[in-house]
Amino acid sequence: MIQRIEGGVCAPLGFQANGIHCGIRASRTKRDLALIVSDVPAAAAAVYTSNLVQGAPIAVTRRHLADGRARAIVCNSGNANTCNADGIEIAEGMARLAADALGIAAEDVVVASTGVIGQPLSLEPVRQGIGPLAAGLSRDGCAAACEAIMTTDTVPKAVAVEFSVGGRTCRLGGIAKGSGMIHPNLATMLVFLTTDAAVSPDMLRRALSTDVQGTFNMTSVDGDTSTNDTVAILANGLAGNPEITADGPDFEAFMAALNTVTLALCRMIARDGEGATQLLECRVRGARDLAAARTVAKAVVCSSLVKAAMFGADANWGRVLCAIGYAGAPVDVAKVGVSFRSAKGEIEVCRDGAGVPFSEEKAKEILLEKEIDILVTLGDGGASSTAWGCDLTYDYVKINGDYRT
Amino acid sequence: MIQRIEGGVCAPLGFQANGIHCGIRASRTKRDLALIVSDVPAAAAAVYTSNLVQGAPIAVTRRHLADGRARAIVCNSGNANTCNADGIEIAEGMARLAADALGIAAEDVVVASTGVIGQPLSLEPVRQGIGPLAAGLSRDGCAAACEAIMTTDTVPKAVAVEFSVGGRTCRLGGIAKGSGMIHPNLATMLVFLTTDAAVSPDMLRRALSTDVQGTFNMTSVDGDTSTNDTVAILANGLAGNPEITADGPDFEAFMAALNTVTLALCRMIARDGEGATQLLECRVRGARDLAAARTVAKAVVCSSLVKAAMFGADANWGRVLCAIGYAGAPVDVAKVGVSFRSAKGEIEVCRDGAGVPFSEEKAKEILLEKEIDILVTLGDGGASSTAWGCDLTYDYVKINGDYRT
Repeated sequence: MIQRIEGGVCAPLGFQANGIHCGIRASRTKRDLALIVSDVPAAAAAVYTSNLVQGAPIAVTRRHLADGRARAIVCNSGNANTCNADGIEIAEGMARLAADALGIAAEDVVVASTGVIGQPLSLEPVRQGIGPLAAGLSRDGCAAACEAIMTTDTVPKAVAVEFSVGGRTCRLGGIAKGSGMIHPNLATMLVFLTTDAAVSPDMLRRALSTDVQGTFNMTSVDGDTSTNDTVAILANGLAGNPEITADGPDFEAFMAALNTVTLALCRMIARDGEGATQLLECRVRGARDLAAARTVAKAVVCSSLVKAAMFGADANWGRVLCAIGYAGAPVDVAKVGVSFRSAKGEIEVCRDGAGVPFSEEKAKEILLEKEIDILVTLGDGGASSTAWGCDLTYDYVKINGDYRT
Repeated sequence: MIQRIEGGVCAPLGFQANGIHCGIRASRTKRDLALIVSDVPAAAAAVYTSNLVQGAPIAVTRRHLADGRARAIVCNSGNANTCNADGIEIAEGMARLAADALGIAAEDVVVASTGVIGQPLSLEPVRQGIGPLAAGLSRDGCAAACEAIMTTDTVPKAVAVEFSVGGRTCRLGGIAKGSGMIHPNLATMLVFLTTDAAVSPDMLRRALSTDVQGTFNMTSVDGDTSTNDTVAILANGLAGNPEITADGPDFEAFMAALNTVTLALCRMIARDGEGATQLLECRVRGARDLAAARTVAKAVVCSSLVKAAMFGADANWGRVLCAIGYAGAPVDVAKVGVSFRSAKGEIEVCRDGAGVPFSEEKAKEILLEKEIDILVTLGDGGASSTAWGCDLTYDYVKINGDYRT
């Protein structure tokens, strides 16, 4: 039984957060430095972007998480600290400043940065801001932290659940920053998760790396895999459950809670993609195997032409078929079926690889909604998968045509 | 010595063309049926889309070209004749109607269609139009044929060259239809090439399939590989050169002429991508091998974020590095260099994987031009490659948000 609760990353016992404007961004109206802290040592795990170009914070975080332990996450927005000659030094400096302010070891700090690539990042604003940031930590600080990691995001993204492990109530919460450069492996810029469940570092790592395959790795906004993507989780064990150290019902319960939170964040990230007006969910059924299902689902939500058609509420299903055809998965085109679905109903547009007569008027009504499901049946087997994306709009171009100014 | 000449597909001896409005499109102001004919039998070859969903005309053309011979190309725009239950029958009907009007065998006709996927195509307009279309064939008909294969193209694309093989002057010409759904393998919807050089079917096939690797397969408008891409060539031998049947200087001279025409068409297609205002050319040098060079070059011109930055004349080189990083080729990021170049000059923005100070003003001036070179050095070896693309603009979204109406 998994239940939604309030509080985001502060919902689990023993976690506090805060976010302030320290001056990395010129605009004073937007917070740019976030801190999430566990009152006690926690197991920790993270997965990172597959891009060969990786932000300096990732190198530092990898090292700090080698022992599977951490207590704090410090993250700035406005500058990615990537492709800078002194990047490692700056990322280490950020971790050390946070550690000193919290009275913990620098090795227990996860550090992350998001924003423009290739612009030097000064430590000065962090040095100025870290004191007030740490002093302001509280159980109510999730919203401030969430705002501080946003870039072109238009809405904060936080979610938390309550669940049961070994008879004890546990909580798991997360915040995310998405918007642009969102593409599978990893699909998001930054996701920070906290839980008061007791989970060993090994099992926490396994849980996270398994979960992202079907969640963040299936989410695309624009096909660009960013250099700074990080999904990190801290598990401080304050819920008092018997520590999860192996497979079994407890691990399954934890995985289910984790998946509830990550799925919700994926949908939030896709819905708030740069310039997006619609959440697109492509559900593929009847695939030969999981790999084929995932490949096809991702191709559909990644197609610029499908995305633009959805923006125009145009039931141009030929583009869906086209994307399935070039996806690279083994598909028998003559067996493919496509339907569109939203709160306004469902309409079949293609069966056995060919068009079926349908009401354009009804299709338009369905596609004018803000959440569109693209339902694909392959007729090849029993595997299924879902991918998340968004429509392609004028605003995506506008936002990215002049991002730095 | 290869020289540009006028005439497009009619520049080679013994080729005539025409294009008319037959009624496949509702709008009477746009031609929609094209015919290109050789006065004598010709060697013929074609390469097709790698999409698993393929237009019905491709299946028919494959069969007709199995013997390496053809005399005519018939092509309509306004309807792709793809994903239609009766598609093969319709495509065969188009070939037969053209053959009857020309007094040749249906097996000597290449048939192609471009336009909306999944809408039934009636043969009636073709039946009505084929007589006047054939009657109007002339040496001056290239422009009409070129217009008739256009969809959202804003300019016709034709080019021709004169070259010498075995002491005889030969000619090679081509027309192309590009615009949307343009992505490597193949990179273009339709390209028709003619030559009066004598080339055996085997060598013609080899020449074409070799050439497209570095030309049409390196061109991307929007990352969507269409279902109807076809590049076809007819060689009628009227130039009187000794037939090219093997490797050697004659074949090399022919390949060079072919490459001159296909490169020019690639650039025209990229420059006239849907909504495009800029031609982007990414030149990669110093790659470990050709595959790495091509992978990196394609990733850069395919990145939505790079394309949007170029539209905004924003020297956001971090996005170029990001695309190089996720391209999937082995690259040592610490050795990467990036410069931007146009008619207004060249500016270095990244060296050894990190930013170098540069004048934003000068960069803006360079990027406001209509042809931008993105120069990438990898420092890994001696291989190089070039890819072509275009910027991502509001108009791309507008055109594709409501394509069918």
